[in-house]
Amino acid sequence: MTTASPTGLQKQRLLTPGPTAVPEAVLLEMAQPIIHHRTKQFQAIFAELSKQLQWLMRTGGPVLTLAGSGTTAFEAAQVSLIEPGKKALTIAGGKFGERWQDIYQAYGVEQVRIDVPWGQAVRAEQVADALAANPDVSVVTVVHSETSTATATDVQAVAKVVRDSDALLLVDGITAVGTLPVEMDAWGIDVLVTGSQKALMLPPGLGFVGLGERAIARLEKVAPAGYYNLDLRKWLASWKKTDVPFTPPVSLIRGQRVALEMLQAEGLESVWARTAKLAEAGRAGFAAMGLRPISESPSDSVSGAYYPAGVADGAFRSAVRDGHGVHIAGGQDGRGAKWKGKILRISHMGYVDAGDTLAGLHAIETELANAGHAVTPGAGLAAAAGVLAGK
Amino acid sequence: MTTASPTGLQKQRLLTPGPTAVPEAVLLEMAQPIIHHRTKQFQAIFAELSKQLQWLMRTGGPVLTLAGSGTTAFEAAQVSLIEPGKKALTIAGGKFGERWQDIYQAYGVEQVRIDVPWGQAVRAEQVADALAANPDVSVVTVVHSETSTATATDVQAVAKVVRDSDALLLVDGITAVGTLPVEMDAWGIDVLVTGSQKALMLPPGLGFVGLGERAIARLEKVAPAGYYNLDLRKWLASWKKTDVPFTPPVSLIRGQRVALEMLQAEGLESVWARTAKLAEAGRAGFAAMGLRPISESPSDSVSGAYYPAGVADGAFRSAVRDGHGVHIAGGQDGRGAKWKGKILRISHMGYVDAGDTLAGLHAIETELANAGHAVTPGAGLAAAAGVLAGK
Repeated sequence: MTTASPTGLQKQRLLTPGPTAVPEAVLLEMAQPIIHHRTKQFQAIFAELSKQLQWLMRTGGPVLTLAGSGTTAFEAAQVSLIEPGKKALTIAGGKFGERWQDIYQAYGVEQVRIDVPWGQAVRAEQVADALAANPDVSVVTVVHSETSTATATDVQAVAKVVRDSDALLLVDGITAVGTLPVEMDAWGIDVLVTGSQKALMLPPGLGFVGLGERAIARLEKVAPAGYYNLDLRKWLASWKKTDVPFTPPVSLIRGQRVALEMLQAEGLESVWARTAKLAEAGRAGFAAMGLRPISESPSDSVSGAYYPAGVADGAFRSAVRDGHGVHIAGGQDGRGAKWKGKILRISHMGYVDAGDTLAGLHAIETELANAGHAVTPGAGLAAAAGVLAGK
Repeated sequence: MTTASPTGLQKQRLLTPGPTAVPEAVLLEMAQPIIHHRTKQFQAIFAELSKQLQWLMRTGGPVLTLAGSGTTAFEAAQVSLIEPGKKALTIAGGKFGERWQDIYQAYGVEQVRIDVPWGQAVRAEQVADALAANPDVSVVTVVHSETSTATATDVQAVAKVVRDSDALLLVDGITAVGTLPVEMDAWGIDVLVTGSQKALMLPPGLGFVGLGERAIARLEKVAPAGYYNLDLRKWLASWKKTDVPFTPPVSLIRGQRVALEMLQAEGLESVWARTAKLAEAGRAGFAAMGLRPISESPSDSVSGAYYPAGVADGAFRSAVRDGHGVHIAGGQDGRGAKWKGKILRISHMGYVDAGDTLAGLHAIETELANAGHAVTPGAGLAAAAGVLAGK
């Protein structure tokens, strides 16, 4: 996309942590004529996509494809798996962890809450203690990569702890799947949720729910809370017949198949390594600009830093966008912190490469200097280049 | 465009000095259904394009749109304007200047040649001397921006000299128009030629010929050397009726209109300034990597440098392409020099911005270091960023 901006013919680079850029091959696939979903052609596409999603989540179990977003999918998992009269242990350390608390709140589900300070990750011992104190916990929700705080949690350790209880672990992998190492089956994750608009390189519109054996067994015990998306039993029954219960977003599904084909060609470990390298370069660039990181347990999906004194968020992001075509994110307010106006964030997920990351750092350091922050143009770039050179 | 390369999901960045990258809006316009060319709809598009080309070349005269390339257009001008029995003064200091000599050679036109060393530009005095010594010169050919040597010639000064003779000045503006300041009418250029696949941001396929009054008068005196493209009188007659003599490349013409609309929104002086800034950053980046420039009179369209000792051209450009998705150019052999394997070149024309230029410099410095050249990763980037920061 281009705009004729005051500074010239400007390419647009989407470095927001979702939606992210979509590859040209995927855009072209989505521009194909619409096919009907009750056809062998669609069934073949859907069957291939389902296999790809298993590959992506590292699971042999079903991965359901829902129309909506990551939130759709997580809400569906939350309400489809909480046993009547039982509690949910909900872990929050940012905007998205708080959202899953809000959802159970809206449904009147009693919660045991673990609230960690924004920018920190929960420790597995905290989860173990809470489970020991609350044997009637039926579901545990945790965010793998908390986008609002650029923070990663050790989900493998949390899963080990939850596995020793009767509770199911619901992992928000929305900015983790396809970005950080996530091993659904090997780690014993009961439900793994992600969305199309992050590392999966698609426009927003699809949510995915991976179901482990314990979760599938639990589905039979819980009455559905709704109809379209909120009854996962219906989706699972269709999935077993390589089918969908309702008219699905055909174009997005076609596009998702092509996007995952690209990731398969690259190899999942290579995708993780690429993301980790870009994140390391981003953090080194921020540090060389004198920016303080927002996270004590940084995620490789997104990098965040506090603004230096005197830099105004709105004007700064406008300058980065209008002057360089680079779209970055600011902060969000929640119960645990008020970060609106205080931080900036850039994504390392999906269809973004070293060149885009350098372009983003260049835009940020240039506008920091313009805003009066003491940074030498090129300092962040040189630090990032140093990281990228280390192989 | 993406490829699943050994190093991951890789964006492709075309930094070759033509063809250059095409904006998404132009690609979408070219994907519109084909319209017939004998329609009011096409005529309206063609009329607007013709006006835009006048704006671009800074001329009030006709600018013809030919099917083919810049070479098609230049050949057409050469053979349509050389008077029978007269000589051509042909100036060459690179591959393209030599091509125009080859064309007159092929048609058996007697030439007075000025051959300047590759990497240097002709001086106006040399042209004046040659014209004084050869009063039967009918046409002078000169290259404004010699792509093969990254060298710019002072066309304004040359035009002033030629204007004092009966000879017509044919300017190869193929990598100059839309890149460097070129004032067709104000400088008194008789014929200005360019192509679609450089600064005009279109795929290859169109050549453009701007005709001044003296050139139009000359057309009547010269018998056509061919039929389709080689008889400019036919094209001029059609142009006057807002028409084309033969079935034109409809999609390219539609796309060209949109591409020029983008340049018009930016403003021509802004386009020139943007290109100059990117070229300055490119040259500073090369210098910081310890690379020696190939030109004593550098063009802002393309930057060129000699390889350091021990860097092998083919392997190097493959590493830059396969490792980073960055496409750069090597050198060419000609009568005046053998630069194949000895130099590298990057483009600053058209749909390329600071981010792309930084990505290119990053790829080059990384692979120079990998090839054993003593360069600190980030040195070229920091130097380029310093230039980009200077406003």
